[in-house]
Amino acid sequence: MELNGVTIDNTFAEGFPIWVSRVIITAVTREYAMKAATEATGFATSAIGCPCEAGIEGYLSGDETPDGRPGVSIMICASKKKLPEQVMERIAECVLTAATTSVFNGLPEAEEKFDIKIHFFGDKFESKVEIGGRACWKIPIMEGDYVGEEVFGMVKGVAGGNFFVMAENQMAALLGAQAASDAILEVKGTITSFPGGIVASGSKVGSKNYKFPIPATTNEQYCPSIRDKVPDTKVPEGVKSIYELVINGVDEAAVKKAMAAGIKAAVKVPGVTFISAGNYEGKLGPFQLKLHEILA
Amino acid sequence: MELNGVTIDNTFAEGFPIWVSRVIITAVTREYAMKAATEATGFATSAIGCPCEAGIEGYLSGDETPDGRPGVSIMICASKKKLPEQVMERIAECVLTAATTSVFNGLPEAEEKFDIKIHFFGDKFESKVEIGGRACWKIPIMEGDYVGEEVFGMVKGVAGGNFFVMAENQMAALLGAQAASDAILEVKGTITSFPGGIVASGSKVGSKNYKFPIPATTNEQYCPSIRDKVPDTKVPEGVKSIYELVINGVDEAAVKKAMAAGIKAAVKVPGVTFISAGNYEGKLGPFQLKLHEILA
Amino acid sequence: MELNGVTIDNTFAEGFPIWVSRVIITAVTREYAMKAATEATGFATSAIGCPCEAGIEGYLSGDETPDGRPGVSIMICASKKKLPEQVMERIAECVLTAATTSVFNGLPEAEEKFDIKIHFFGDKFESKVEIGGRACWKIPIMEGDYVGEEVFGMVKGVAGGNFFVMAENQMAALLGAQAASDAILEVKGTITSFPGGIVASGSKVGSKNYKFPIPATTNEQYCPSIRDKVPDTKVPEGVKSIYELVINGVDEAAVKKAMAAGIKAAVKVPGVTFISAGNYEGKLGPFQLKLHEILA
Amino acid sequence: MELNGVTIDNTFAEGFPIWVSRVIITAVTREYAMKAATEATGFATSAIGCPCEAGIEGYLSGDETPDGRPGVSIMICASKKKLPEQVMERIAECVLTAATTSVFNGLPEAEEKFDIKIHFFGDKFESKVEIGGRACWKIPIMEGDYVGEEVFGMVKGVAGGNFFVMAENQMAALLGAQAASDAILEVKGTITSFPGGIVASGSKVGSKNYKFPIPATTNEQYCPSIRDKVPDTKVPEGVKSIYELVINGVDEAAVKKAMAAGIKAAVKVPGVTFISAGNYEGKLGPFQLKLHEILA
Repeated sequence: MELNGVTIDNTFAEGFPIWVSRVIITAVTREYAMKAATEATGFATSAIGCPCEAGIEGYLSGDETPDGRPGVSIMICASKKKLPEQVMERIAECVLTAATTSVFNGLPEAEEKFDIKIHFFGDKFESKVEIGGRACWKIPIMEGDYVGEEVFGMVKGVAGGNFFVMAENQMAALLGAQAASDAILEVKGTITSFPGGIVASGSKVGSKNYKFPIPATTNEQYCPSIRDKVPDTKVPEGVKSIYELVINGVDEAAVKKAMAAGIKAAVKVPGVTFISAGNYEGKLGPFQLKLHEILA
Repeated sequence: MELNGVTIDNTFAEGFPIWVSRVIITAVTREYAMKAATEATGFATSAIGCPCEAGIEGYLSGDETPDGRPGVSIMICASKKKLPEQVMERIAECVLTAATTSVFNGLPEAEEKFDIKIHFFGDKFESKVEIGGRACWKIPIMEGDYVGEEVFGMVKGVAGGNFFVMAENQMAALLGAQAASDAILEVKGTITSFPGGIVASGSKVGSKNYKFPIPATTNEQYCPSIRDKVPDTKVPEGVKSIYELVINGVDEAAVKKAMAAGIKAAVKVPGVTFISAGNYEGKLGPFQLKLHEILA
Repeated sequence: MELNGVTIDNTFAEGFPIWVSRVIITAVTREYAMKAATEATGFATSAIGCPCEAGIEGYLSGDETPDGRPGVSIMICASKKKLPEQVMERIAECVLTAATTSVFNGLPEAEEKFDIKIHFFGDKFESKVEIGGRACWKIPIMEGDYVGEEVFGMVKGVAGGNFFVMAENQMAALLGAQAASDAILEVKGTITSFPGGIVASGSKVGSKNYKFPIPATTNEQYCPSIRDKVPDTKVPEGVKSIYELVINGVDEAAVKKAMAAGIKAAVKVPGVTFISAGNYEGKLGPFQLKLHEILA
Repeated sequence: MELNGVTIDNTFAEGFPIWVSRVIITAVTREYAMKAATEATGFATSAIGCPCEAGIEGYLSGDETPDGRPGVSIMICASKKKLPEQVMERIAECVLTAATTSVFNGLPEAEEKFDIKIHFFGDKFESKVEIGGRACWKIPIMEGDYVGEEVFGMVKGVAGGNFFVMAENQMAALLGAQAASDAILEVKGTITSFPGGIVASGSKVGSKNYKFPIPATTNEQYCPSIRDKVPDTKVPEGVKSIYELVINGVDEAAVKKAMAAGIKAAVKVPGVTFISAGNYEGKLGPFQLKLHEILA
């Protein structure tokens, strides 16, 4: 299959279930909502080495938020057990401390809920208020009063949506991945948790050549610079650089939509020559997100 | 003491020792260095709830980096014991995965050093290279080759530099704090670890009114909205909002310089009326950063 | 009338007809489309002193552009006679010269059209191509090939939509205006042509106190700092600062929608106390955009 | 000559005298200074089609500005005759109207001065004030009081500093040019007036193939896509895309420094293969900025 002259590999991304919470952060202006969202979703690229995976879902206008202020929606992803604590800590450390922010439950209809009890921070100076039909707490703080919800929904979403942008040189691959990342930012219900939405280094579980235990090492099959030294390389001929887009979403449909939007954007970038995706041959994850189906 | 018509309280910020590493992140353009730096310093506002405190020290031009590329310098702060692991994880998860980045030791003359052994990620495909006189490892990854140092220095720096920007209303306090944060960004050797460099909510250890254990609750003495209910309030009359700037630095001189730059910027903002600082009456921290001395 | 506790003056903005073209600028990434759009809409705040009025309407995703690349939509406004030349010059100087850009007619259904003949720049090396159903020219340039339309539509739109954000101090007024400007950016069919979308200084035609001719001087009736010296001041008591939002749109409905969105955003900002609008008592402009009706 | 493996052509950029004013714009925060500076330097890429050439020289910290606020320095370039009017109009339309701004003369030691008489806008409500040793006017406006200088210096500077970034494909050329543009932003005394600092299309005077008069057409000698059709092409073999950096400066030394900084940055970008510069064989401009000398 070709799209805009770029080969689309006949393969699939392999997705896994992950629990997802969506937190709506509002502030006096977009800029201040974004500052809090950026801090709250930092150090959260991969569940392997970070406490969770998190990213920015998108901007919200005043029409779309409970308090009528501009907002940024973030998604935090982890195991069902770890998720409540991660949401709690990231709100407490990164949003409650940020200027002019409020937080709201971005999954009000989720059946699974948890309560982060942030109002104890008020030391009994806090009070209940209703904002846009939401039960909130008002907590006196230095800037004035913090207002926010503390019950959040969580849903069983999909992690590990992905595709590779391969190109004739590194800068073409990079801007292809950038265009893909920008496009995915506009797809509701999805995030890319890596820096700037782009992954520069892929890993395999364990090590082939070191004798002592290492949790993860470079995935040499996808390394263009050692293509000639790796007999089972998966780097197509002529490809000099690869970036991966990794997508988590609230459901399979959202992840597929994001993959399609990202791939369509990447193939518009001159020098991008090949699109593929990563999987474990279907042995591990229940979701097979097939590139040709997604783009059909 | 008055500065630009704003009262400067006769008090001091109380600083504590903290161990600090500086990591120089370079990339193909400033923008990509900043993306990695932002991810690597996220979820790192306060050592109380985050694994470390981290922030962006500033931009570096190609003249100032070992590989001649544009860069961003970040500082990561923690206990001596925890710091190496935090530097390791944040580089491994947030910089090695980011597009086009390299990392270099930003404290090459520090006596204390640690080694993060990131080259094992190369699974023996890695090799040694020298970049700008630095011993680096070149590791094949998807985008091409990652290049970076893995021995980093750490110094005993100063945490807890701080001052309060108080104003006649919230928006004046906010822009006063913003001007301060911008000014501090230009002072070498310092960071502000909170979102956008500004702290909206201060805390005290434990709780006064709840009977069960809570690690920290709102510092009601600095809450303008309940000023009338708190007999020992520290909110000056007429002050309606307070933001705090919290500064970590490589040494006391740098923290003082940042405090001075921040305060001078804040008092230029119309509506800012009072500057103070937080301390534990000298009982805990060895550094007393006196506002009047700093500004003299 | 009150909105969120803020008084809404019982008055109207007075609008005038203006001719409007919409130009869709696409590029390899959003960032590069925005760089071109920013240059192309610069020095275009007010038709009084600038060659035209221009601004950014908003971002477009790949789904919304003829070539499937990310884009920014801009609007250029002038008299019917001057508009074609302004569109021509701003595309030729600021978009054709910008990296990776294409331009498309953003008003394909407008009855009035004009042709900017940019293909002569190709010196007969140019050729016709069709992109997304649009008749375009491909012109060889240094970066590769520039591709774009050269026939543009124009419609008789509405200029002079406006409202004033008044507050208890300057920083509250500023962030109120900022929130309004951010909100208006999301309303299709409208622009704010002033720097950052905010107007800090209002003018009246001519001069009262100087004897020689001056085209425009400060509108002292709206100057809080000299409120006591101006008997017919229109500054409400307690107001210390005023910013104006000035809106142009493709039609009256769009301007009204933008005014409503902006006012709703501004009144959420603490310290904003009064919203009004500017008019010539209905003597000049055919459109009376009444605040109470717009917000009903 | 080679630099980082990239060929540096043995040629020179040909510079011309141009008159330059430097305007320092300060504001409550960096962000607001930048908004005004962006508007004031828009639609000013090339003196051929724009009223002037203008660009952002760089940020200034509070230490570097007359009023101690953060600032942005811009440079406006035109003929000696046209320059005062351009400075006047861009300040009046784009800075006086922008939130919280002041302007100061950035060339206080220049022998040539001009007076833009902006204080008449105050309609006799204005008054003289001294700020940081500068004679300023305070003019009541909507936001409060505008304060700024109105006498500006101008110097005979150098226009037309330039170099070409050539690469094996378009995205490599683009990011090479971007790295160069970022580096030049840090060189005092210089600007790049084109969108984002990068020029995508070069022109020659007049036309070769059209019979009627056209002021400028594409410079086919530097068009990679028609390399095979142009016998006297200057596109080296293997080069698929070219971007130009065009630099104006306060003097020849500054322009040379910017060219060196830009070239050194560009050659670090993978895929960039060749650096050259544009000239008229020394027939027109008095300055010959030789690449090999600049980089020696």
